[in-house]
Amino acid sequence: MKKKGLLIILSGPSGAGKGTVLKEVMKTYKNLSVSVSVTTRAPREGEVEGVNYYFKTIEEYKQLAHDNAFLESECVYGNYYGTLKSEVFGRIEKGQDVVLEIDVKGAFNVLGKYKDAVSIFVCPTSMDELKSRLAGRGSETAEALERRLNAAMGEIKEATKYGYVVVNDDVKECADDVIAIIKAEKCSTKINNDFINKLTGGNS
Amino acid sequence: MKKKGLLIILSGPSGAGKGTVLKEVMKTYKNLSVSVSVTTRAPREGEVEGVNYYFKTIEEYKQLAHDNAFLESECVYGNYYGTLKSEVFGRIEKGQDVVLEIDVKGAFNVLGKYKDAVSIFVCPTSMDELKSRLAGRGSETAEALERRLNAAMGEIKEATKYGYVVVNDDVKECADDVIAIIKAEKCSTKINNDFINKLTGGNS
Repeated sequence: MKKKGLLIILSGPSGAGKGTVLKEVMKTYKNLSVSVSVTTRAPREGEVEGVNYYFKTIEEYKQLAHDNAFLESECVYGNYYGTLKSEVFGRIEKGQDVVLEIDVKGAFNVLGKYKDAVSIFVCPTSMDELKSRLAGRGSETAEALERRLNAAMGEIKEATKYGYVVVNDDVKECADDVIAIIKAEKCSTKINNDFINKLTGGNS
Repeated sequence: MKKKGLLIILSGPSGAGKGTVLKEVMKTYKNLSVSVSVTTRAPREGEVEGVNYYFKTIEEYKQLAHDNAFLESECVYGNYYGTLKSEVFGRIEKGQDVVLEIDVKGAFNVLGKYKDAVSIFVCPTSMDELKSRLAGRGSETAEALERRLNAAMGEIKEATKYGYVVVNDDVKECADDVIAIIKAEKCSTKINNDFINKLTGGNS
């Protein structure tokens, strides 16, 4: 009996290191593929089409929305971001686990539509730690840094609505926690009812 | 901020190998202690007082019940079995995880009183497998074997009410699943609300 894959939502404020944690997870947990989002914002330096995002014009994006292609779609500061159903459901049916690296708003949109999604929030160990990580990037003005910290605070307050919280103190340990969550969710009774029913269905 | 330990319920029909799995878990996961139950039944060969059970007379057992010493207590075929609060709560408060290896009835008693308990049911891969394991012990009459199999079937049907189901195909892998469940539960938001509140409480 083939089990469906899990849909995993990974969120966390910028600077918490969720991208690094995800890379570490994928080094050891191989049955995981990343859902690439669609966006109308311009590519940043180093971003690759089909790897970081599918970059689309607003017209192309609207056509996809019209074709009901999105699991969730949102507008942030005038740019659209969306998760394609085609990135998620085919793989899940084949038993592959799919991870969405999305913000809090996107996460709640997905949870509203797919209640079996496993939601994980990556936290920094402290706001001081987050501040020094963001400042360490050196690319921010004091004002932009303050704005990011306030945004982070707002996002972390929403973490209580996630299923799990992992603290990124040590990347390797944090990745181990994420892998444990995936393994545990695969043992949850709600996705193993078929197995239990088969076992008691007269196999003895 | 010290986290409370988890109360873990481990159940499964006889022959599913839950004792062996638990031993394997404890080899690698050190923050776990077993709650030793009290019973009025006679010790079997090789059973050690304070290790397998605390063996008590019916009078002693009734005194403990009268003193409200039990987290749960039940009578099975005329013998009493009980879980002492003193085996559980002191350790949990200190941050230690405590495991109860108890039957389905005892498990539901505990879950009714301590809803944060993590319940794990150890399943065989098939009823045929269970049958051959029980028969392999060689100590059973055909009738006793049939009785055990029927009892196992009844217990496995209750597995859907547990939080998790692990399949004991390979002891090492099954133990890894149990450890993943414990690690994941420690990341569950419901026991990390204090951390999130502290993080957003003005530490920046």
